[in-house]
Amino acid sequence: MAVEGGRDLWVGFDLGGTKMLAQVYDSQYKILGKDRRKTRSSDKAESGLDRVALTIRTAMEVAQVDPSRLAGIGIGCPGPVDMDRGIVLNPPNLGWDDVNVRKRLEAEFNCPVAVINDVDAGVYGEYRRGAAQGARCAVGVFPGTGIGGGCVYQGEIFRGRNSSCLELGHIPMVPNGPLCGCGQRGCLEAIASRTAIAAQVARAVLRGDAPALAKSVGADVEKIRSGDLAASIQAGDHVVEEIVYDAARSLGAGVAAIVNLLCPDVVVMGGGLVEAMPEIFVDYLQKVARKRVMTSYRRSFSVVAAQLQDDAGATGAAAWVRHVVQGD
Amino acid sequence: MAVEGGRDLWVGFDLGGTKMLAQVYDSQYKILGKDRRKTRSSDKAESGLDRVALTIRTAMEVAQVDPSRLAGIGIGCPGPVDMDRGIVLNPPNLGWDDVNVRKRLEAEFNCPVAVINDVDAGVYGEYRRGAAQGARCAVGVFPGTGIGGGCVYQGEIFRGRNSSCLELGHIPMVPNGPLCGCGQRGCLEAIASRTAIAAQVARAVLRGDAPALAKSVGADVEKIRSGDLAASIQAGDHVVEEIVYDAARSLGAGVAAIVNLLCPDVVVMGGGLVEAMPEIFVDYLQKVARKRVMTSYRRSFSVVAAQLQDDAGATGAAAWVRHVVQGD
Repeated sequence: MAVEGGRDLWVGFDLGGTKMLAQVYDSQYKILGKDRRKTRSSDKAESGLDRVALTIRTAMEVAQVDPSRLAGIGIGCPGPVDMDRGIVLNPPNLGWDDVNVRKRLEAEFNCPVAVINDVDAGVYGEYRRGAAQGARCAVGVFPGTGIGGGCVYQGEIFRGRNSSCLELGHIPMVPNGPLCGCGQRGCLEAIASRTAIAAQVARAVLRGDAPALAKSVGADVEKIRSGDLAASIQAGDHVVEEIVYDAARSLGAGVAAIVNLLCPDVVVMGGGLVEAMPEIFVDYLQKVARKRVMTSYRRSFSVVAAQLQDDAGATGAAAWVRHVVQGD
Repeated sequence: MAVEGGRDLWVGFDLGGTKMLAQVYDSQYKILGKDRRKTRSSDKAESGLDRVALTIRTAMEVAQVDPSRLAGIGIGCPGPVDMDRGIVLNPPNLGWDDVNVRKRLEAEFNCPVAVINDVDAGVYGEYRRGAAQGARCAVGVFPGTGIGGGCVYQGEIFRGRNSSCLELGHIPMVPNGPLCGCGQRGCLEAIASRTAIAAQVARAVLRGDAPALAKSVGADVEKIRSGDLAASIQAGDHVVEEIVYDAARSLGAGVAAIVNLLCPDVVVMGGGLVEAMPEIFVDYLQKVARKRVMTSYRRSFSVVAAQLQDDAGATGAAAWVRHVVQGD
């Protein structure tokens, strides 16, 4: 596809709370260069944006391409964004507030910049280059610290009134259930996120009910990762297995609610839990969801594993800015 | 707006399980004629479609206009439809199955026919002519026998993979709660539909806890209508009041979940319960929903009462076929 004045390269940027990643793509989505560095929580917006720009410049240098070839930059950011104006509103863990990312980067790189939510970037990446290609309505579900969600509908990121939405983590599941970060009780995220699972298995460790996990990691909720859970189940920690299946069952019920509401073709499951235990968080979860949706939706959707892994955010952001600029 | 060969009139049709209504609209949405008759559950598709056609012809005769002036017919039907092909799939209470309504009526009336779900028709009517005008994302919630839901997003009916969706009634609210018609337990509809409310107040009547309602209607769940509930509360039946507020609270939690997912500008509440008790099912419900959404969404939406009442379905169906034919 011809782009103005030999501008044929795209940058996809994944701005996370702990690290940032810039990747330079050619028109075939081949990665020509990348740069990754830590996000510094001490950075205010000004110095944070300097760091983003440095990461992009470095990735361009690694790719050995001239910045004049840049056709667009797509940035995926945590939390709510104003897509129309390219503004990051108040991302968790970044300490930024109403920062006009687009204006700053367009001035520096002299090319179009699109700002989207990081989960939306991941789902859009799967839609263009991964597990959700060809879907009319694709929903992404990413259980992790919280539970991220996004939807691509008829080729566009679904964004409700004004920005990203699909806050799947806050579907109410259990009246008077555990307290959620949003202030409510019994939200899906308070029951079935990796953090919620870790908190439950930590108690099992303390009770002596998860000997393998006790040996490998202990009861520090922050240290219990998805791989540790999978290994502990493999090693015979039945209580851990039960807790993980309970979470998958709740997620399956949440996915069923989403299917009843949005009637997607495909639900893409992504993130560490899914990568570590696809037979539980894809296959078993799909069985649960099929049982719990309305009869007429039972065969209308499939649950699949994300394909792009760590690249999904950057690839999705690059594909999105390309879509915005070229309309393809 | 000029239409081919003096075709300047639109028919909106509301095909319900108990009655059907055809209205003839001019380009200003003035109703020139209407006809209404009972839906006969004994009718199979063939004779049912004859009856639909007869109702349209009669409405045209009442309006004293020639069928050659028809620019399009929009039909709202209960249950799932295939909008692309104009097929009614398996509507509850009609006993039809995969009926090509469009083909039959296009042949008879020689004009474009659009088939949509009845709730979508109602929400689209409110979007074009009622309480949701100008919204980028409008959600309609219609508690009644079940709980109908629909969404108009960027001027189009949101329909997921292939047809209507937004099955709000089946958001899971209470694990192991009352059995729902869909086969699950504790769905919003099993807790907060008019039917669910009626079943609870009927028990209050039997216990002697709702003396006013006992006197006016009795304990027949089928006979307890929204107006009876409002009158019983007015007359001092405190238990009825508590049951109705409980239902509104559950609906408010359901609306909060929808807001977290879809980030609508406006949530339109419609149906008998809402008309009879707007202070509970609009004002109070909005308060509950605002408390239960994520902080960033607290001021992003409003809950309002539907404006079109019984006309919403027919008006929405007429406006939709006009949108399909003319693109406006």
